[in-house]
Amino acid sequence: MRDFLPEDVRRRQYVIGVIADVYQKYGFEPLETPAVENIETLLGKYGDEGDKLIFKILKRGEGEQTGQADLALRYDLTVPLARVVAEHRGQLPKFFKRYQIQPVWRADRPQKGRFREFYQCDVDSIGSRSMLVEAELLASAADVLKRLGFNDFRIVINHRQLLMAILRDSEVPVERYSEAIVLMDKMDKLGRDGVRAEFEEKGFDAAVSNRILNRLGAEYRTDWLDWIERDLTLLGEDGRKGIDELREILRLSESTSAGSHLRIEPSLARGLSYYTGSIFEIRVADLAGSLGGGGRYDKLVGMFSKQDVPACGISLGLERILVVMGERNMFPESVVSTPADVMVVQWFANRTNMYLAFATELREAGLRVELYPESPIEDGKKVGDKQFKHAAARGIPFVAVIGGDELAHDTVAIKNMKTGEQKSVARADVVKWLNS
Amino acid sequence: MRDFLPEDVRRRQYVIGVIADVYQKYGFEPLETPAVENIETLLGKYGDEGDKLIFKILKRGEGEQTGQADLALRYDLTVPLARVVAEHRGQLPKFFKRYQIQPVWRADRPQKGRFREFYQCDVDSIGSRSMLVEAELLASAADVLKRLGFNDFRIVINHRQLLMAILRDSEVPVERYSEAIVLMDKMDKLGRDGVRAEFEEKGFDAAVSNRILNRLGAEYRTDWLDWIERDLTLLGEDGRKGIDELREILRLSESTSAGSHLRIEPSLARGLSYYTGSIFEIRVADLAGSLGGGGRYDKLVGMFSKQDVPACGISLGLERILVVMGERNMFPESVVSTPADVMVVQWFANRTNMYLAFATELREAGLRVELYPESPIEDGKKVGDKQFKHAAARGIPFVAVIGGDELAHDTVAIKNMKTGEQKSVARADVVKWLNS
Repeated sequence: MRDFLPEDVRRRQYVIGVIADVYQKYGFEPLETPAVENIETLLGKYGDEGDKLIFKILKRGEGEQTGQADLALRYDLTVPLARVVAEHRGQLPKFFKRYQIQPVWRADRPQKGRFREFYQCDVDSIGSRSMLVEAELLASAADVLKRLGFNDFRIVINHRQLLMAILRDSEVPVERYSEAIVLMDKMDKLGRDGVRAEFEEKGFDAAVSNRILNRLGAEYRTDWLDWIERDLTLLGEDGRKGIDELREILRLSESTSAGSHLRIEPSLARGLSYYTGSIFEIRVADLAGSLGGGGRYDKLVGMFSKQDVPACGISLGLERILVVMGERNMFPESVVSTPADVMVVQWFANRTNMYLAFATELREAGLRVELYPESPIEDGKKVGDKQFKHAAARGIPFVAVIGGDELAHDTVAIKNMKTGEQKSVARADVVKWLNS
Repeated sequence: MRDFLPEDVRRRQYVIGVIADVYQKYGFEPLETPAVENIETLLGKYGDEGDKLIFKILKRGEGEQTGQADLALRYDLTVPLARVVAEHRGQLPKFFKRYQIQPVWRADRPQKGRFREFYQCDVDSIGSRSMLVEAELLASAADVLKRLGFNDFRIVINHRQLLMAILRDSEVPVERYSEAIVLMDKMDKLGRDGVRAEFEEKGFDAAVSNRILNRLGAEYRTDWLDWIERDLTLLGEDGRKGIDELREILRLSESTSAGSHLRIEPSLARGLSYYTGSIFEIRVADLAGSLGGGGRYDKLVGMFSKQDVPACGISLGLERILVVMGERNMFPESVVSTPADVMVVQWFANRTNMYLAFATELREAGLRVELYPESPIEDGKKVGDKQFKHAAARGIPFVAVIGGDELAHDTVAIKNMKTGEQKSVARADVVKWLNS
């Protein structure tokens, strides 16, 4: 886990600001949940691998001796959202559209763009089964990436129910569906032969894995939907729904910024166990792993209440976006801003009150002002130069000096730290001069 | 720990925005640290009571069986700052001024304005022993409160070294100083007699506790500094320093917004064990406990490195500020904003693409747009009314309809949800019309 020094925080705040602004344009409202959830809320939602990565908190009092954990750090923002929807249903509109930008924690081995504490930027629509939900979620994510300067991202989509139909038709035993899904999802990393080897290693019948691999077809083959529709012996209700919904998402996305980035990826499966329909992932070539992902999870809210509520969402990974933006130098110059517009020097040791009053004057006029904190006299000697060095080191563009001359004429000497130029400005005009 | 629904989040963001903006005016830079720290970083910094309230995280793997904790949730933002300063000293300017607005966790019993997860809004100056640091910290906190609409707050200050001199001169045994400090700090809650009873209960000599209580004088007696200076038999170096520094803070604050709110409070002691000099607390009459507090801690950084670094800070409690602002109705109307500027109705079931394209058009022009997610046909019947009800329930001020007439004439019917008025606007003029 990492500390973020001022320049890091400014970059993070810039990206978060763009994300929140775009999400708001789509009518999403902000939600925040606590970092800590009851441990039962989290366990059993993410699959076995996920459960192992949850940070668990010791019960207070006696629990500290017995080692019992009753709380845990949230692992994602989707399960807490489902809990909130179940708990506060009466206070929320029928169609609840929320965004949430908060940290989550996973006891994972860190790698490029992956940390044990990281921010997810989630946007979810609750209450509707319409594929317009999917289309708007993908459009908002695409808008975010375009606003940040990305043009080369790919959004790959697929459908869990179509995957189920393929597994069934390929004669995978029902009890091994989730295992097979995890293997299919590795196509992106391991390639066709790698996945075939893993299927073999896990003891799947060669005929079965061949049938599956044939059906996952070439990547991004746009006619794959037509082909799989014909190829499956028994399409089934789930296969039908998967194909129809994917076609509808593609059709609706024609009018949005996501459209030209969108591809079907037959092997996309997503690891988390709570997805029930469409699934998506956003990728760029220079990052292993994805910039974001999501999907539909119509059964998750029902795990916290008696009633299922349809839901779909997408999550952008802040750290991964920052890593790629950093490597590609994508931050606008204005983001790396200075800590202050001007620094006020303490010229006379016994006039701190006057300098403080001057700084207050500038602050009240809206300027960000650093006042050098210490006296210019040390062991009886003037140390004025130190102050200019401090301003330079902090990247403050102007330094304001009120010395003897300036006091006498009610002026301020202002030094431009970039050019070295110095100018005498009437005290009443300083704000106007600095703002110009 | 609580969920924050959209209206709560907007209020929180408003207050956080004001705080960050004011802190920036004083040249403070943003810092963020991880929620989770190594457990040794936190233990032994807050006193025995504090240590008990730290949430501890189970070690992964084998640790889960043995109940061993290696990490903990941060308890405040000051100790993490001291760790950061010790760790990143080379990357930070000599005078490092940072603000940090993040949650902290304490396994405390919840009460009014006090929660187990809560946000601290901290501002700290590292590297200078000058009392100008204190003056600017108090001024920034006062500016925040004034910008939020508070006028009746009191800032009480005192000095740990002066308290030490009083304890010594009152003949408290050295090993009982910290115990006596905790008791003195209760004057605000228990009153003089209550504190006297506690001193007795803990077995302090009556003559000793009498001497202490006499010296704590009446609250807010402005001439207390002069009086205590004369009254102490042996002022000592620490007492001298305490009195001089308090006088300097009062003098410098004359030129700031904190000045008129500032009082010396002889019994103010603050619970945390890391303070070494000036201490402060901000109070309003209608809240038990404080809106914020802080002080100087010149020895804390030294606990993480070989070198002491002077440091001073103040922390505002976001939740307490929100509680009082809520009770006093202090939020500007603009804060409780609607989730969207306009909702686009789906009039024809088979034209979703057209409505989505229209919504995209408005969003690109900067408007926040809700598009009703579902088809207006359910079981073969029009359900147009539901859409207007949804807009009303979410407080969206305008609804835009493109029906048959509008399609024919390239117009949009816009309904004002407050007045019920409906107007036909040329499609090309909708953005201008909604923005006016």
